[in-house]
Amino acid sequence: MGPDLTPPTPGVPTMLDLGLDAARLTEDLVNIESVSGNEGAIADAVEQVLVGLNHLTVQRFGNTLVARTDQGRAERVVIAGHLDTVPLNDNLPARRDANGNLHGLGTCDMKGGVAIALRTAASMPVTNRDVTYLFYECEEVEAERNGLFLLSQSHPELLEADFAILMEPSDAVVEAGCQGTMRVDVVTRGERAHSARSWKGVNAIHAAAEVLARLNAYQPRRPVIDGLEYHEGLNAVFISGGVAGNVLPDECVVSVNYRFAPDRSEDEAAAHMREVFDGFEVTVSDSAPAAMPGLSVPAAAAFVEAVGGTVNPKFGWTDVARFSALGVPAVNFGPGDPHLAHKQEEFVPLAHLESVERQLRTWLGEGG
Amino acid sequence: MGPDLTPPTPGVPTMLDLGLDAARLTEDLVNIESVSGNEGAIADAVEQVLVGLNHLTVQRFGNTLVARTDQGRAERVVIAGHLDTVPLNDNLPARRDANGNLHGLGTCDMKGGVAIALRTAASMPVTNRDVTYLFYECEEVEAERNGLFLLSQSHPELLEADFAILMEPSDAVVEAGCQGTMRVDVVTRGERAHSARSWKGVNAIHAAAEVLARLNAYQPRRPVIDGLEYHEGLNAVFISGGVAGNVLPDECVVSVNYRFAPDRSEDEAAAHMREVFDGFEVTVSDSAPAAMPGLSVPAAAAFVEAVGGTVNPKFGWTDVARFSALGVPAVNFGPGDPHLAHKQEEFVPLAHLESVERQLRTWLGEGG
Repeated sequence: MGPDLTPPTPGVPTMLDLGLDAARLTEDLVNIESVSGNEGAIADAVEQVLVGLNHLTVQRFGNTLVARTDQGRAERVVIAGHLDTVPLNDNLPARRDANGNLHGLGTCDMKGGVAIALRTAASMPVTNRDVTYLFYECEEVEAERNGLFLLSQSHPELLEADFAILMEPSDAVVEAGCQGTMRVDVVTRGERAHSARSWKGVNAIHAAAEVLARLNAYQPRRPVIDGLEYHEGLNAVFISGGVAGNVLPDECVVSVNYRFAPDRSEDEAAAHMREVFDGFEVTVSDSAPAAMPGLSVPAAAAFVEAVGGTVNPKFGWTDVARFSALGVPAVNFGPGDPHLAHKQEEFVPLAHLESVERQLRTWLGEGG
Repeated sequence: MGPDLTPPTPGVPTMLDLGLDAARLTEDLVNIESVSGNEGAIADAVEQVLVGLNHLTVQRFGNTLVARTDQGRAERVVIAGHLDTVPLNDNLPARRDANGNLHGLGTCDMKGGVAIALRTAASMPVTNRDVTYLFYECEEVEAERNGLFLLSQSHPELLEADFAILMEPSDAVVEAGCQGTMRVDVVTRGERAHSARSWKGVNAIHAAAEVLARLNAYQPRRPVIDGLEYHEGLNAVFISGGVAGNVLPDECVVSVNYRFAPDRSEDEAAAHMREVFDGFEVTVSDSAPAAMPGLSVPAAAAFVEAVGGTVNPKFGWTDVARFSALGVPAVNFGPGDPHLAHKQEEFVPLAHLESVERQLRTWLGEGG
């Protein structure tokens, strides 16, 4: 773990060595640049090592890989991670600091989790549950390109399981469920006029004062579900209006993002938005459902117990909602601080890599 | 004035005939397309007819023309109009309707006024005041390209006069002075955060609610100056903010246009903006001074009396403010409804062309 390690040359496809520890393997994965849409090299590298493992059946769909054990166990679990990252931000290659952290694009979100899943896949031919390992493309971009979404449409049978673990950064503890997210455009209308004779028109931007006042007055709910306190939020994320420097604008659009707890459906969330912005034009422009924590399902409860019992609510939206929609209870459990995802300075603590891998392996029967 | 007139082919430079009546001449001028920056053809056509008139000294600067009489009169007056138009909007060539109106780009703003000035220049070699006729480029675009502005910088002596008439559309009556205009950016600041954990940030768009509330509460002044009631206005003309669909924005900019009466200087207007938006960042992004009506100046008073005594205040900003800044009292007096300027459906009533020309000629001594 010292600075004597020679980093691979970034950009050159790396032959992965699954015998390396999770820290070294994460470093190698990080140095294979894989911004969304450019996952070919990393998917090739992952496929190459997986197909060499006799206990796995490997299938590839685009740059998404599915590797399954078939031991005839009573239970099956999905262990999933995405291979892509957000765009480069002068944060490659990976580098270690003196405090035991690995820095660089994708260290936190989420090649640390991918490294752990790959090592587990390689080194545990026998597990107490059958496992479907899933490494997928395009999680950081629009849903239509998301490898997990595409697989759920083309081969839903490959995602059948009793439980799923999404190895997104969750501070190395379980984050359960996820809040839904909805974007609505709240539109105000006016009537154009020359600004030198403004009494002849109606200013649509001025009319947005009431929209912003309602946002300021809004009290977000904090419902407790399965013992977890969620925390909703209602925020303007864009505002725009204006025609010319001398014209009263006839339209102003406030784009509002509503993050809603898992006890609310998308329909209920949309109805709530129409209620909050009663009197204005409200159009839903984007929506993704929440996921219930689902901790009462036996497979989920067993997992939580195995990893120490600590569970936090997940505030952000993640692909656990896709599993939830397929009827598969799912949690987030991975190394790294979720607040660092998408930040230039993202990093993963090596201690997280170690503890998450150990807990996962124990749960899958190692040493049992 | 019937439909038997053959319209000139648009786009083909026209040999102007200053013997035509003002309506025909306006039509010919309108059909020489001259969107700002493209005044070469119309300036050529105007220069060609002016240089043939022995009683005028003609000078050209870019696409701006100055033509002066030198009769040694005690008084000198500027009669000015711009040659350019706003962009085409499917409103060429010119066409007449059955109600005695001429439609098309530039009919109202302001080739009707230009036609009257050209006819007067051609047919009145003797006037009771010396006249400086001015036909200039780029009035509809940024000040730095404005032909009148450029001339005021390079040859201010050519603009020396006791009085100026700007033949902008003013409903064929005198509109005196003009209101100033200032644009200020009012900026709110916040702190970015992921919208799924909005309590970790501060939303700058929400903070703009107070800016909009102040705009809604604002009571514009209506001061009476030289007997004319001006009417101020304070309006948001643009608003923008937003980083991404899942991020609390850290900045929101409200661009506010203040139209201020001629009793207020630009400095006073800026101070007033800082007072109205006290507590926010306020930056002046654009400013043009108001012009006092100046009706107490003898040359102005005589003109007003000669054209019937009716005077309205000018709410919009016009180049009269440039004359005012040069110490030359100036009024707007031209054919056409100023509310139609810059509109697709602009037109000029032929009756305006007739009455404005007649009043101008009478004032310059015709029949006296």
